[in-house]
Amino acid sequence: MTASTPQHPAGHVIDLLIDARWIIPVEPFRALLENHSVAICDGRILDLLPSAQADTAYRARQRVVLDQHVLIPGLVNLHSQCATRLLPGNHGDGGRVWPTRSRPLNADLVRDGTLLGAAEMLRGGVTCLNDVHAFPAAAAQAVLRLGMRATLGLLVLESPCAYASDAADYLAKGLAARDQLAGTERLQFSLAPYAPYAVSDRTLERIATLAAQLDLPVHVRINETAHEDAESQRRHGLRPLERLRRLGLLGPGLIAAHAVHLDDQDIALLADHGCSIAHCPTANMNLASGIAPIADASARGVRVGLGTDAAPANGRNDMFREMRHGALLGRAATGDPEAFDVHTMLRMATLNGAAALGLDDRIGSLRPGKCADLCAVRLDDWLPSPCADPAAHLLHGASRDQVSHVWIDGVEKLCHSQLHDIRAGELLDICALWQNRAM
Amino acid sequence: MTASTPQHPAGHVIDLLIDARWIIPVEPFRALLENHSVAICDGRILDLLPSAQADTAYRARQRVVLDQHVLIPGLVNLHSQCATRLLPGNHGDGGRVWPTRSRPLNADLVRDGTLLGAAEMLRGGVTCLNDVHAFPAAAAQAVLRLGMRATLGLLVLESPCAYASDAADYLAKGLAARDQLAGTERLQFSLAPYAPYAVSDRTLERIATLAAQLDLPVHVRINETAHEDAESQRRHGLRPLERLRRLGLLGPGLIAAHAVHLDDQDIALLADHGCSIAHCPTANMNLASGIAPIADASARGVRVGLGTDAAPANGRNDMFREMRHGALLGRAATGDPEAFDVHTMLRMATLNGAAALGLDDRIGSLRPGKCADLCAVRLDDWLPSPCADPAAHLLHGASRDQVSHVWIDGVEKLCHSQLHDIRAGELLDICALWQNRAM
Repeated sequence: MTASTPQHPAGHVIDLLIDARWIIPVEPFRALLENHSVAICDGRILDLLPSAQADTAYRARQRVVLDQHVLIPGLVNLHSQCATRLLPGNHGDGGRVWPTRSRPLNADLVRDGTLLGAAEMLRGGVTCLNDVHAFPAAAAQAVLRLGMRATLGLLVLESPCAYASDAADYLAKGLAARDQLAGTERLQFSLAPYAPYAVSDRTLERIATLAAQLDLPVHVRINETAHEDAESQRRHGLRPLERLRRLGLLGPGLIAAHAVHLDDQDIALLADHGCSIAHCPTANMNLASGIAPIADASARGVRVGLGTDAAPANGRNDMFREMRHGALLGRAATGDPEAFDVHTMLRMATLNGAAALGLDDRIGSLRPGKCADLCAVRLDDWLPSPCADPAAHLLHGASRDQVSHVWIDGVEKLCHSQLHDIRAGELLDICALWQNRAM
Repeated sequence: MTASTPQHPAGHVIDLLIDARWIIPVEPFRALLENHSVAICDGRILDLLPSAQADTAYRARQRVVLDQHVLIPGLVNLHSQCATRLLPGNHGDGGRVWPTRSRPLNADLVRDGTLLGAAEMLRGGVTCLNDVHAFPAAAAQAVLRLGMRATLGLLVLESPCAYASDAADYLAKGLAARDQLAGTERLQFSLAPYAPYAVSDRTLERIATLAAQLDLPVHVRINETAHEDAESQRRHGLRPLERLRRLGLLGPGLIAAHAVHLDDQDIALLADHGCSIAHCPTANMNLASGIAPIADASARGVRVGLGTDAAPANGRNDMFREMRHGALLGRAATGDPEAFDVHTMLRMATLNGAAALGLDDRIGSLRPGKCADLCAVRLDDWLPSPCADPAAHLLHGASRDQVSHVWIDGVEKLCHSQLHDIRAGELLDICALWQNRAM
C-alpha cells in the first residue's frame, strides 16, 4: 500500500489533513507508509495518500504536520477497570500490596477513578476502552466527559456489594443504566458476569438470553488462575468454558479476559465459537497468574486483543507496556525471538480489540470509511535514536510518554501531549482528594 | 532507620543539602525514609537525617528541595554495550531485526555510541555502568565527558575485528588503554573475554593470571543461550562454568552476564566462589534466550545485579525497565506474586551491582561515608497517582522519564531532567550523523 487513488475531485474541501512522516495503518498488515497523509471529513477517514499528492487532491480547513511522528490507529484497551485507580494498593506490586482494605464503593469513586484511568489511557493513545465496574452510569459520565469510545460492562455477581444486592439487582441496575444512555454516541455496553465462578447457571442463562436479545457482547474473566478449573469441575462437573458453552454463552460476542489456563480443548472451544481473548500480559506476570498460551490460541484462529487489567494488578493503564510486555513474554514463553513482532502486537492493540467489540467496521485500522480515531507518537527525541525501523522503535524504544496527538472521530483530544477536555490540575486535585480520604 | 545522630557540631558547613519527600537508602534493606535530608560534603554523604533537624545541624552552600520526589542511590548498569546504539537494528525487535549488516567498526563509532548510550543511562538515573566493547579508550572518552562512573571491559576474542587481530592483540591493546588512563577518577577496567566459547583455554589462563596480578574483575557472558553448554561439552569435555573454574577464573571478581542456562551444579559453583550474575531480563525475553534461574541463584547466595545488555537486544538502555521486567519475569517464572518486590529489584539495580564491581564500599546505597551518587524521581504527575506506596510506585507506576535529578560524587549531572554536560542538540546531531551514514 504505497498510494491510493483519491476518491474525490481535486481540491475537495475536507475538515482535516494530517501529514505524517510514517503511518502504520494496521491494514494491510505490516504496511509502513512514509510521508503519507490522512484526509478526514465529518469524523471519518476519507483517504490515505502520499503527502505530495494531498496538496492538489484536498483543500483542508485544518492541516497538521507530524514530520517526526508515526501515526497509528487509536489503541483499544480490551480489558480494564479504571475505577480501581482509586483503590489502595494501586501501584501494582504483585501480591505484596494487593488491596487488603477497600474504600467505601460508591458512584463518586467510580466516576472519579474512571476519569483518572480513562484520561491516563487517552494521554497514552487509547481511544477505546472496554471497562468493567459497578456503577456503570458513573463510569459513563467520565468517558463521556473525555469524548472517548467505550464499551462499559454491566457487572453481574451473585454476591452483594454497595452497588447491588444480588445478580438480578446487578442486571436490573445495569440494564437501567443502558436504557438511560441508549443512543449515546461512542458508548456501548456489554454484559459482564465477573467470572464463571462468581455467577450461577441460572444467571448465566439469563445473560445468554439477554446477550442474544439485545445483541450485546459478553465480557468475562476466564481461567485467570490455576485453581478455577478444578473448582469448576468440583462444583459443576464441567470446566469453565465447557460450562459457558452449555449455557449458550460462547460465540463471537464473547470476550474472555485473561484466559491464562487453557488446554487444547479450551482453545478449540474459543476458536470454534469465534470468541476473543483479552490478553493481559502485565497483570498475568505481576500477579504470577501464569502464562497465557497466546501463540497457540492465535495459531488456532482465536482473536487476541490486549488489556491492562486493573491498576492494582498493573501499576499503570498503559497499552504501550502491554504491547511490549506481550511481545517479551510471548518470546520468552515460545522460545521464538521472531514471534510477536511489533506489527502483530500493534494489531492486537487495535484491530483485534475492535473486532472483539464488534467495532472493526468502524475503528481499529486506518482505512477510508472508518472513524478517524488516531494516535501520533513522536520519534525525534535523542533518547531512542537513531531509529532504524519506526515500527520496532515504537514498541521497544518509545513509550506512551511520546504520544503527542490523539483524535477521536476526527476531533483532537490530545495535542502536544496535553489533554483537551480536562486540565492536569483538575486531575491532580482529584488524586489529592482521594489520597487524603481515610481508607 | 528513622533518624541518625549528626556527626558534626550544629551549623557545620557543607556543600549540599538535599531535602527529599522520600528516601530509599537501600541500606538498611526495605527502609523508606520520609521527609529526610542528605548532607553532602566533598562528594561524600556526610549524614542522613530528618529534614526538620537538618536546618540546625548543617549550613549548606546549596540546598535542593525535592518535595515530590523519591531519592535513591544512582543506578548501576552491570552489563551494557553502549556502542551498539549505533548499529543498525538498534530497536530491539527480537530476532526479526537483529543486525544483519555491520557498520565499519572504529573508534569514532564506539566513542559516539558510548556517548549516546551513557547519556541515555544518565538521563535515566544510572550513575555507574559496566560496559564492554572494542576500542575501550574511545568509550572512556565518552564516559569521562559525562563524568560518569564506569568499569570498561577490555574485550578479548580469538577472532579478529577492526580493533584487534587476535587474543594477544586484544589484550595488549586493552592493557595499553588501561595504562594510559590509569588513575582516572571514577574509571576502572575489567578483563572481558566475550564468552567462554569465543576464547581458548590458553587465553583464559592468561586472563586469570592478569586478573589476579592486576586485581581486575572478569566480565564474561555465561550460558546466554541453550546450546552453549552442549557445545562446550563437545569441544572441551566440560560445561562452561566448570571450564572457567579449572582455568582459575571463578572468584568474587567474576561477573557472569546473562547466566540463563544454569543447572544446580552451575549455581553451586557461582555461589561457592562468590561470583555475581548480571541479569538481563529484557534481552533474555526479547531474544527468547530463556529464563535465568534468578530466584534459585539468589536463594543460594549468588549476588544478582541488573544489566540492559546491548541496545539491539533491548531497544533502550533503561534500568527502570530492567527492574520492572526483572520483577515481572521473576514472578511469572516462580509463580510467586510476592517474589521480586520493589526493594529487591532496587537493591539488584544498585548495591548488588556495586558489590559485583567491588565498589560497594563507595556506592550502591545512601550511607554516610559513601560517594554522593544519587537519583531523584518525581512522583507528582497525575498519571500514576494517587500514590499509596512510593517504593512500589517507583517500579510500577513511574518510568525513567520521571528521573529529575542525578548527582555523581555530589556533582549535579541532571537537573530538572536536563543533562549538564551535553546538550540534547549535540546528541541529536550525533544521531543524525550516524543515521545518514551508509550502513
